Amino acid sequence: MAVSIVLPIKKVFSLVDSKIVVEIKDEKRKFQGRLIAVDEYLNLHMDETAEYVDNQRGRNLGTVIIRGNNILTISPLI
Amino acid sequence: MAVSIVLPIKKVFSLVDSKIVVEIKDEKRKFQGRLIAVDEYLNLHMDETAEYVDNQRGRNLGTVIIRGNNILTISPLI
Amino acid sequence: MAVSIVLPIKKVFSLVDSKIVVEIKDEKRKFQGRLIAVDEYLNLHMDETAEYVDNQRGRNLGTVIIRGNNILTISPLI
Amino acid sequence: MAVSIVLPIKKVFSLVDSKIVVEIKDEKRKFQGRLIAVDEYLNLHMDETAEYVDNQRGRNLGTVIIRGNNILTISPLI
Amino acid sequence: MAVSIVLPIKKVFSLVDSKIVVEIKDEKRKFQGRLIAVDEYLNLHMDETAEYVDNQRGRNLGTVIIRGNNILTISPLI
Amino acid sequence: MAVSIVLPIKKVFSLVDSKIVVEIKDEKRKFQGRLIAVDEYLNLHMDETAEYVDNQRGRNLGTVIIRGNNILTISPLI
Repeated sequence: MAVSIVLPIKKVFSLVDSKIVVEIKDEKRKFQGRLIAVDEYLNLHMDETAEYVDNQRGRNLGTVIIRGNNILTISPLI
Repeated sequence: MAVSIVLPIKKVFSLVDSKIVVEIKDEKRKFQGRLIAVDEYLNLHMDETAEYVDNQRGRNLGTVIIRGNNILTISPLI
Repeated sequence: MAVSIVLPIKKVFSLVDSKIVVEIKDEKRKFQGRLIAVDEYLNLHMDETAEYVDNQRGRNLGTVIIRGNNILTISPLI
Repeated sequence: MAVSIVLPIKKVFSLVDSKIVVEIKDEKRKFQGRLIAVDEYLNLHMDETAEYVDNQRGRNLGTVIIRGNNILTISPLI
Repeated sequence: MAVSIVLPIKKVFSLVDSKIVVEIKDEKRKFQGRLIAVDEYLNLHMDETAEYVDNQRGRNLGTVIIRGNNILTISPLI
Repeated sequence: MAVSIVLPIKKVFSLVDSKIVVEIKDEKRKFQGRLIAVDEYLNLHMDETAEYVDNQRGRNLGTVIIRGNNILTISPLI
């Protein structure tokens, strides 16, 4: 079971200090911003956060904590 | 993995005694109030809480405990 | 991190034996009744419980256990 | 914190071998049957289970395991 | 509290290698197939799985892992 | 209870480095891609990920972390 050693959360840890895109479950919304901190539940602390609704830039949210269980996906911003 | 030492919850702890905005998952509602206490599940104890529906101020709720898993985001009130 | 010592659940414990209002996530329903017991998941044991739909008093439910994760908020009845 | 000693789950344990009504979150459905076993997550093992939709008796389900997190309330059948 | 010794998951363990019906929360879908393995979260490993939508047989899914928290009920196929 | 030794997650571990299909709860969406890593919550780290909406190929997502609780099913790509 050596494959389990590299956990998915390790990938998220590697994204700290860089820009990420967070897709919310069941909502046509995404958050884009800089990842400051993450924990084992995938709770995220972000800043410089902007909301995107249907891929249109929405509000600037600045500093925000997102509850992990409501996140569908986390990706590096490309 | 030193980056994981500063957990997202630390940011929420730093907001105790100040005003916060809590966005609820799947509902067009927010709660605004003073954060009294928080635990590791992001359960919140707030007072002086007011409800906002579609950014319109609604009911005054006073003292309220919010279950963490139903929270989408927590932000400092600016 | 001394602020974390007073947990949100302590507030709920303090409400045992008194009347509370429980708002359910995603439903226009509330339960109002006397809090008998609560655990760390915010599972609640209530009695003398009445259901409120859109702020209209509905069924009398009597004794009921409510699963914590489906609770949005818990408040003292004022 | 002596009040926390009598946990909500104790009430559910006391219902083993008797008839209960289980209300499902977000669905206009209830399950009525005999409680065989329960665990700390409120997962339930029931038999002689019948489904009720809008208070109309529906299918007989017989033996069923219900996942605790999708349960809204558990009550004794009166 | 002797009643708690026979846990609901024991019933599910007893169904390994036999045919089961799994009802999904909030979806008019069921999965029917052979249970290969189950864990304490009620995550299921099934094979020979077929999807049923509104009681009509749908796609053959073959081998599938189902996340426990999205399961409403598990029953033996009768 | 020997049957419980082969856990469902073992099946998912065996899929690391191969192509999988991930069905999302409550959304008509699937993710197809290569599984890089998985943990005990079924959080997934995938790459070469493509989105499918109603079985139509959608966006290329590349690298993505998917939160386990929002996953309905995981299957090997056949």
